[in-house]
Amino acid sequence: MATTEYTVTGMSCGHCENAVREEVSGIDGVTGIEVSADTGRLVVTSEQPVDDQAVIDAVDEAGYSATRS
Amino acid sequence: MATTEYTVTGMSCGHCENAVREEVSGIDGVTGIEVSADTGRLVVTSEQPVDDQAVIDAVDEAGYSATRS
Repeated sequence: MATTEYTVTGMSCGHCENAVREEVSGIDGVTGIEVSADTGRLVVTSEQPVDDQAVIDAVDEAGYSATRS
Repeated sequence: MATTEYTVTGMSCGHCENAVREEVSGIDGVTGIEVSADTGRLVVTSEQPVDDQAVIDAVDEAGYSATRS
């Protein structure tokens, strides 16, 4: 199991968290997501190490920007 | 046609505006809604004067607080 952490900018509320959660949950192999608008922290748990670009693209699709922490 | 203005607290983003819009649009007779997270302004247009409590309840249902301006 792998845990990867990202910093997401632009989230302001629970709706934003849900939008990120929904997009990131669509990535193959992702088994867990923690996301906080307050801290901008996104933690992705996956069976195998997740593809950073897939996470960054998913967050972008939700309308925000992510960088690997 | 009637136009009624409310002040809504707690909205932070476009998702919040959409949540308010969705709930308020369910009120009978409502024909138009303008809502801004930036200003907290909600303007409801309706065929007949709208019931304030219905608007306040709808905004509450969306997770925010409204008062008649």
